[in-house]
Amino acid sequence: MKNHKFFKEILADLKKVEKELDKVLKVNDPVLSQTCISLLQAGGKRMRPGFTLLSGKFFDYSFEKLLPIAVALEIIHMATLVHDDVVDASLIRRGRPTLVAGWGNEVSIATGDYLLAKALEQIVKIDDNKLSAYMAKVCIDMCQGEIHQLKYSYDIEQNFKQYLYRINRKTALLISLCCKLGAMACKAHSRGIWIMSTYGHCLGIAFQIVDDILDITADPKVLGKPVGNDVRQGIITLPMIFALKDPKIAERLKELLASDQKTEDEVQEAVALIKQSDGIAKSNEIVQRYIKKGIKNLSELPDIPAKGALIELAEFVGERSY
Amino acid sequence: MKNHKFFKEILADLKKVEKELDKVLKVNDPVLSQTCISLLQAGGKRMRPGFTLLSGKFFDYSFEKLLPIAVALEIIHMATLVHDDVVDASLIRRGRPTLVAGWGNEVSIATGDYLLAKALEQIVKIDDNKLSAYMAKVCIDMCQGEIHQLKYSYDIEQNFKQYLYRINRKTALLISLCCKLGAMACKAHSRGIWIMSTYGHCLGIAFQIVDDILDITADPKVLGKPVGNDVRQGIITLPMIFALKDPKIAERLKELLASDQKTEDEVQEAVALIKQSDGIAKSNEIVQRYIKKGIKNLSELPDIPAKGALIELAEFVGERSY
Repeated sequence: MKNHKFFKEILADLKKVEKELDKVLKVNDPVLSQTCISLLQAGGKRMRPGFTLLSGKFFDYSFEKLLPIAVALEIIHMATLVHDDVVDASLIRRGRPTLVAGWGNEVSIATGDYLLAKALEQIVKIDDNKLSAYMAKVCIDMCQGEIHQLKYSYDIEQNFKQYLYRINRKTALLISLCCKLGAMACKAHSRGIWIMSTYGHCLGIAFQIVDDILDITADPKVLGKPVGNDVRQGIITLPMIFALKDPKIAERLKELLASDQKTEDEVQEAVALIKQSDGIAKSNEIVQRYIKKGIKNLSELPDIPAKGALIELAEFVGERSY
Repeated sequence: MKNHKFFKEILADLKKVEKELDKVLKVNDPVLSQTCISLLQAGGKRMRPGFTLLSGKFFDYSFEKLLPIAVALEIIHMATLVHDDVVDASLIRRGRPTLVAGWGNEVSIATGDYLLAKALEQIVKIDDNKLSAYMAKVCIDMCQGEIHQLKYSYDIEQNFKQYLYRINRKTALLISLCCKLGAMACKAHSRGIWIMSTYGHCLGIAFQIVDDILDITADPKVLGKPVGNDVRQGIITLPMIFALKDPKIAERLKELLASDQKTEDEVQEAVALIKQSDGIAKSNEIVQRYIKKGIKNLSELPDIPAKGALIELAEFVGERSY
């Protein structure tokens, strides 16, 4: 578990979430046991449960109510990562081999389905069907985002709006939901729910744009996976959308990004072209705009320590390099 | 929709289930819309909703309560078929190309996930969390069955008990759940729930053994898919477990079934050997035992038309050739 410094307000409860994740995913089957333990040990930032708990702090905080929500949301997130790695044929994530790399597609698909079933087991524990209905809606939208991404692979005619549609579904909806449900479970008023949901949306969009920037600019060792993945897979991200408008490189970059048969040299050539362009700087500007909006949006909330944590988290998302 | 003759007691309601499935799976996205429509048009026998509605007939029948349950169960079934086809690389099912054949693995995985999310949307509509918890439990167990099948591929040392463990999770648990939830939603007493659940279990086990027999003996044109699939994929089924005990063919059959690099000729050779053995007859005996048990189990229930339908359905499962 990383990111302790943002989560110090909720650290004890976050540790209980981690324990509950261990317990919920403990299973007798030797294969599933190994795949689940390796997923849990890979860690991840546990940002989603963190958002849920922090959001609850502004209202009538009840860990008992938040626990199955936080666990379900993190397991949904884990399941999407596992299936994404199958779809993208990703062999490395967070500096470790993915399930696909270690166990192959079949076991990975089944493990992802198992995680979704375990999430369902948690969801049915939530005693407010309105909350579960929001979860279902977001799961549906996330799948639509995945399909959208597949459909528009290698399509260099994409615009900012289509990109936003996709990253909202890919990342922002779930983070926004974490904040929203954290508030709802703790009896927030409708304005409070709206504030948390909007904060999560801004953070989620910023988070994904940064992810897409890092896929071009990062040091692979720090990132924990190879760079240029999006280029390789034909996923057209914001830095590319901007770079494709630069007349000096547009022609060659179009050729490279539209090809689904790229050599590794061509991938690296495309990465270099995007770095040369103003695509990174412009994408960073958009990130900062979302971060600012997310933070500004919190101003109405009381100045409790959780607010400082959410602001720091937002600033971290805007600056992170991994 | 086939099997009208068994479902005449509930035909009007089953048509409403079909309409609701159309409505629930209607979606704006052009890719998902096509994949979902093709799945709906492929039809299937809609046995699961049929079991749910028929089971409700013995108690305080409420279609309103049964509808989201029946829809959720059928969508879960559809999702498992889609992901199974990816895992098994199956290109044809029910005489039609599978999603994998038409759209590839990526879209198929995402469509399966989409269906699971739509099932969740239905499940959260069920106002009794006890029922949803049973659904979650069965989904978890089904995934464990899938993992078990993968783990024991090409393993010719398997016994009847391991086979039963697997087909229970692969098929019987869901059919049993359909019957159980149909009863529970209609306020059945605990004995009634037990009867329906046991009937479903017997039918499910018999159904899967017949499926495994047909994979060896059927006419591919009638079956709607090629025969010998299980042999090809290393899935050791009951006819094989029996055939492997026949000293006349055991040695060669072991060699063939254990190999994960079989030619098509070798697949057909294995199929022929299994047909020669008493594996088919012995498997059929087991089928008849489960069918009889399933029917006998209904004797306590009142003699309403739904009972005749369940008996006929059981007899059909024991005799079906597709």
